[in-house]
Amino acid sequence: MTAKKRDGDDVLVGDIGGEFALIKRLTESQQITDPDVIIGVGDDCAVIRKDDDTYLLVTADMMVEDDHFSHKWYTPEQIGGKLVESNVSDIVSMGGAPRHGIISMSLPAQTTLSFVDRLYEGIYASARRHGLSIIGGDTTRGDRLVLNLTLIGEVKCAFLRTRAMAQEGDLICVTGALGKSMGGLRMLMSGIEGDRSGHLEPRARTRAEAHAIAAHAHAMIDVSDGLASEVAHICEQSNTGAVICRDRIPLAPAAVTAAEALHESAYDYALYGGEDFELAFTMPEREIDALRAVFGDFSIVGRVTARSGGTTLDIDGKREPLRGGFDHFM
Amino acid sequence: MTAKKRDGDDVLVGDIGGEFALIKRLTESQQITDPDVIIGVGDDCAVIRKDDDTYLLVTADMMVEDDHFSHKWYTPEQIGGKLVESNVSDIVSMGGAPRHGIISMSLPAQTTLSFVDRLYEGIYASARRHGLSIIGGDTTRGDRLVLNLTLIGEVKCAFLRTRAMAQEGDLICVTGALGKSMGGLRMLMSGIEGDRSGHLEPRARTRAEAHAIAAHAHAMIDVSDGLASEVAHICEQSNTGAVICRDRIPLAPAAVTAAEALHESAYDYALYGGEDFELAFTMPEREIDALRAVFGDFSIVGRVTARSGGTTLDIDGKREPLRGGFDHFM
Repeated sequence: MTAKKRDGDDVLVGDIGGEFALIKRLTESQQITDPDVIIGVGDDCAVIRKDDDTYLLVTADMMVEDDHFSHKWYTPEQIGGKLVESNVSDIVSMGGAPRHGIISMSLPAQTTLSFVDRLYEGIYASARRHGLSIIGGDTTRGDRLVLNLTLIGEVKCAFLRTRAMAQEGDLICVTGALGKSMGGLRMLMSGIEGDRSGHLEPRARTRAEAHAIAAHAHAMIDVSDGLASEVAHICEQSNTGAVICRDRIPLAPAAVTAAEALHESAYDYALYGGEDFELAFTMPEREIDALRAVFGDFSIVGRVTARSGGTTLDIDGKREPLRGGFDHFM
Repeated sequence: MTAKKRDGDDVLVGDIGGEFALIKRLTESQQITDPDVIIGVGDDCAVIRKDDDTYLLVTADMMVEDDHFSHKWYTPEQIGGKLVESNVSDIVSMGGAPRHGIISMSLPAQTTLSFVDRLYEGIYASARRHGLSIIGGDTTRGDRLVLNLTLIGEVKCAFLRTRAMAQEGDLICVTGALGKSMGGLRMLMSGIEGDRSGHLEPRARTRAEAHAIAAHAHAMIDVSDGLASEVAHICEQSNTGAVICRDRIPLAPAAVTAAEALHESAYDYALYGGEDFELAFTMPEREIDALRAVFGDFSIVGRVTARSGGTTLDIDGKREPLRGGFDHFM
C-alpha cells in the first residue's frame, strides 16, 4: 500500500482500534442529506424508505479465501452457502425478509468450471431456502478467490428492529445454541472428530422466525461476532447497560465437545467466537409467553440494565466486566 | 482452486468463452419466480419494481489491485473515484439516477490510515458529483486490496432504457469521445507524455444527461468494454444488426496522441479499449433535433439494421465484420 507519503502515513488501519473504529471514521466524513436514508452505517443493515409503510434493508459481506474460508476445509457448496447465510442473517436480524442478491467474484485464472458450478449450487440452495433471488453480479480476475454478496431485503416499518431499541428492564434472549461455529473451527484446526457443521454450514434464522420475534422484541441483532460483542453493540446504541448470566448461555454440543478436548471454555466460544448467526434480542418479560406460543427455540440469558451498570458477566453470582467481541483488525 | 476432483474438473472458467459465457451459465441454473424482478442478469443493471411507476436499478463492480488498478499509477483518490464512476455509469446507462451505495473492502494488514482516508475522499467526491449517498459496507482483511461497490438507483418506468430496445433504422450515437481510457493506459505503459486522465480519472455521464437522452432514445448502454462490444450487446438483445462507420467515431485527443506515438490505431482503442464510460444509444432520426436542443455532446456513428445484416464496420465504404469487445477471461 504505497500511497505517496504525507503526514500520518505511517499509521496503519489496525492501529486505530479495529474495524468498527475504521468504519466510523470513514463514514463520519460524509454528510448524508437524503431523507430516505433512515439508518446509514452502524446497524446490521442500512435502512432506506421504500414507501409509506415499507423499508428496504441493504447489507454486504465480503469473504476472502484463506481469511474467511479455506479450500482445505470447505467444499465449494459450503463456501457459497456461507456467503448467503451470513447476509441473510443481517436482514432477518432487523425483522426483515431477504429478497434480492447481487454477487461479485474475483476468480483466480486456474479456477475450474466445476468449482464455480458447485459454488453456485451452494448459493442457490441457500437462496431457495430463504426465498431470495440472485439478480446480478460482476465477475473479474484476481489472484485469490474473493466473494461479495450485497443483499436487499424488506421490512414493514412497524416491524423494523434495530440495535438501538433496547429498554431498561428488558430480558436479553438468544435463539438456538452458541459456540457451534468456533467449536467446529477448533475441531478442524486440531483434528478432533465431531460435528463441524456449525462452522462449515452455518444457517441463518428464517424470515418467519425473525418476524415472529420482531412482533414481541425491542432490540435485535445477529450473533456474528460473539454474544459479548452483540450485547455491547445493543447497549452502546440503546444507551443501556446489561448483565449476562454465563450459566444461562445455551451451549452447542460441538462447542462443549471441542472445548473439553482442548481444555478451553465453551462459554468463551459462545461469547467471543462469532459466526453462529443466531439472533440476540431484548424483550419485555410480559411478552415471553406470547412469543413462546409461536416460536420457542430461544433462551433468556440476561437483562438490560441502566447505562451506569455497564456491561457485566455474572458467573456464579460474581460479576465481572464483559469483554468486547471479535474484531477483524485487532 | 483445489476442489475435490470430479468429471469436468479440468475445464477452466477461461475455457468456456469468457466472462459473459460464465455468467450466462451460472444464472441459467436459477429459476427466478419473483414477479418484481423485471430484468435479472444481462443488462447494465438488474431492474426491480419499486412501485407502480418506479423501478430500482442495482449494479455491482469489483476492482482488484494490480488487475483493475495499480498503486504505481493511481492515487488513492483516483482509485475511489473510478470505483464510483464505473458503477454510476451502469445506472445512468439505463436512464436512471444513482442513489445509494454500499462498499466492501478487503484491506492488506499494512494499509495505512492515510491511504484509506484518501480513498474515501475520492469516493465521496464522486458521490457528491452524482448525488448519491454511501450507506454502508463491510471491511475485512486480505492480502490484496479488493473493492466492491454495489449501487442502487431509480428510474421512472417510462424512462427505463435497456440494451433490448433498439429498432431497425435507428441511428447509433455515442456521447463525448472514445479511446481516452486506453490512450491514457498506453501512455502510462509506454512512458509517453500526455493527458492520462481518461484512464486515471474517468467520469460517468450525469443523471441529467442520461435523462435527457432517455427521453429520445430507444436502446442505451454504457461504453465500458469498447464500442464494438456494446453495439454487439445491443444487437444481440434487440435482435438487430448494425453498421458502424469507423470514420465517424469521435476519437479523444489522448487516444490520437498515444496511437500516433506507438504506431497503433486510435479507432482500435475506441472500438476495443473499454472503460470510457460514455453512453451509446440508438434513436429515431426524427428525434435528433429535439435531443440537440437539450444535449448536444454526441456523435452519430452508425445505424441499426436488420438482424440478417450482422454487425459490420464500414471503412471508407468497405464493410468488414465488427469484432467483439474486450472480455476479462479471454
